Amino acid sequence: MRTVTYGAACSLDGFIAAADGGLDWLHFSPDVQTVTSQYWATVDTVLMGRRTWEVAAGQMEDAGGAAGALAGVSTYVFSRTLPEIDRPGVTLVRSDAGAFVRELKVRPGRGICVMGGGELGASLLAAGVVDEIGLNIHPILLGGGVPLFRDTGSRIALDLIESRPIAGGCVLATYRVRAPSPA
Amino acid sequence: MRTVTYGAACSLDGFIAAADGGLDWLHFSPDVQTVTSQYWATVDTVLMGRRTWEVAAGQMEDAGGAAGALAGVSTYVFSRTLPEIDRPGVTLVRSDAGAFVRELKVRPGRGICVMGGGELGASLLAAGVVDEIGLNIHPILLGGGVPLFRDTGSRIALDLIESRPIAGGCVLATYRVRAPSPA
Repeated sequence: MRTVTYGAACSLDGFIAAADGGLDWLHFSPDVQTVTSQYWATVDTVLMGRRTWEVAAGQMEDAGGAAGALAGVSTYVFSRTLPEIDRPGVTLVRSDAGAFVRELKVRPGRGICVMGGGELGASLLAAGVVDEIGLNIHPILLGGGVPLFRDTGSRIALDLIESRPIAGGCVLATYRVRAPSPA
Repeated sequence: MRTVTYGAACSLDGFIAAADGGLDWLHFSPDVQTVTSQYWATVDTVLMGRRTWEVAAGQMEDAGGAAGALAGVSTYVFSRTLPEIDRPGVTLVRSDAGAFVRELKVRPGRGICVMGGGELGASLLAAGVVDEIGLNIHPILLGGGVPLFRDTGSRIALDLIESRPIAGGCVLATYRVRAPSPA
């Protein structure tokens, strides 16, 4: 079974972007590069919501990249409003995200990364298909912005896998999502 | 100058109590006892808002404690609506919390602890009188409840003092609040 990870860099008060979408508070360091490249080596599939896709697609345009997706990575974009996406390696999914990912997890393949926006993350957490949460908690209170977590309607218990400080006063913390206990 | 610390046990999604006020998700351990007793040895003053006071006062009644406050600790309760508090060691403050604490910090004494509720914490963070933030981040997503942080209207930069995992999958993280940079 493939591992689905919801990961993000966040502020201590739980935002993944400032209210204006700003990411100027993110701290890049060799530590972050190491962690990121080690993680990406385990992944062959990326999931994102419409908003994250629009940002990512814009960045590809800026970079002049006609190819579309990340090299060697299958990208699934979840949206009920986008009419189509015409890029190699990128698939638009209009059906239920939880059911789709549940089916994706049993196909052969490597790790699956839930990127960006808290909305897709929340719906996949609620559907019980997220296996791990990986955070890079930054030493700042933003006060507002795009929330990392949203109310999924029930408590979700986690097990700490690892926590350690890294450069820039950031704290890396990875968790395993516990299977819901029977009601 | 005395150190003002805003500290709390919180969920990974940033709540200090469940929506019904519930704290059943808190994990107590010898690690927590050690950290707590080491911290209390540095403190002689406690600050709380009205709601936290009402919970604390109720617990004192239940314990049959006529004395009122924590032994050897001065307690200040900030409220504009409470008419009076008649307990030895407990002072009702109806004036501006930030100005009061700014003045309190330059009086002789030991550490000052901001207890419970995010509202007083947010107003003191906004007033720039909080020196340290100490969190015990629990491995659970509550989905909703009493928020640990609120919007103070501006970003607050922090420096990580220490972070380490403790029993129960909790992560202790302490931060120094940076003085605001000149606009």
